[in-house]
Amino acid sequence: MIEIERKFLVKNTNFKAQATNKTKIVQGFLNTHKARTVRVRIKGDVGFLTVKGKTSESGLSRFEWEKQITLNEATSLLNICEPGVIDKIRYEVQVKNHTFEIDEFFGDNQGLIVAEVELNDENEAFEKPSWLGDEVTGNVKYYNSQLSKHPFCNW
Amino acid sequence: MIEIERKFLVKNTNFKAQATNKTKIVQGFLNTHKARTVRVRIKGDVGFLTVKGKTSESGLSRFEWEKQITLNEATSLLNICEPGVIDKIRYEVQVKNHTFEIDEFFGDNQGLIVAEVELNDENEAFEKPSWLGDEVTGNVKYYNSQLSKHPFCNW
Repeated sequence: MIEIERKFLVKNTNFKAQATNKTKIVQGFLNTHKARTVRVRIKGDVGFLTVKGKTSESGLSRFEWEKQITLNEATSLLNICEPGVIDKIRYEVQVKNHTFEIDEFFGDNQGLIVAEVELNDENEAFEKPSWLGDEVTGNVKYYNSQLSKHPFCNW
Repeated sequence: MIEIERKFLVKNTNFKAQATNKTKIVQGFLNTHKARTVRVRIKGDVGFLTVKGKTSESGLSRFEWEKQITLNEATSLLNICEPGVIDKIRYEVQVKNHTFEIDEFFGDNQGLIVAEVELNDENEAFEKPSWLGDEVTGNVKYYNSQLSKHPFCNW
């Protein structure tokens, strides 16, 4: 499956009042190579293993494959991940017919908040809420795989 | 799950007459780091994703986690693996109460044949068939993850 997503910084926390969902996420990486990341995630009480490929030339789309695993499996796999586990809360905010996923980071990435919106094609229009900041789509330093190695606190 | 395995070279192909099973295996790696390999395998017409951790100090045991996936999923994931896909035929040979898995390699690893036996504990005794050669347990260059990067033809 190919995912098309645009990513933005978030200017303030006004989005929290509009959130329909809030989930704690802890994740680590079995590989952070740009051509093939392998992520282990605990989202609430469910585990996921996710493989992502290289970003397209436009920077917008990327191969993604995800499998649900148990909490126990995810916990075992997190133990052997690269150092730099990521800890964040994900908020979901509905804006017209699009859902924004907003990640507020903690730990070494405290202070960073980013929003992602998934699109059906690279040119699809969407409403931009007032709290949405600069676009950072395709900027490698905002990839979670990079945030685990080069966290926001060191920028 | 922790696996305890011992690995040996194979001196000749006499084992083929004793084989109870023979399966073609094609596999690639999403990561070949010694502390966390991620393998994509097609075995016959089934796919597997396998994560292995670091080998224990004794060189005999290693964390291993495996999930069955579809042939289509495995094929998609093989596309984004590191260069150096491994192509081999696996024979299973029963020797008394132990099963030896014997891999005959092709492509860049043609000429290499290795046998593995799985044990319940590190000191378990087992019968050694006449075709079994030198032990190479824990020798990193015989790891499939290393054979994909540094194949037998270059040794």
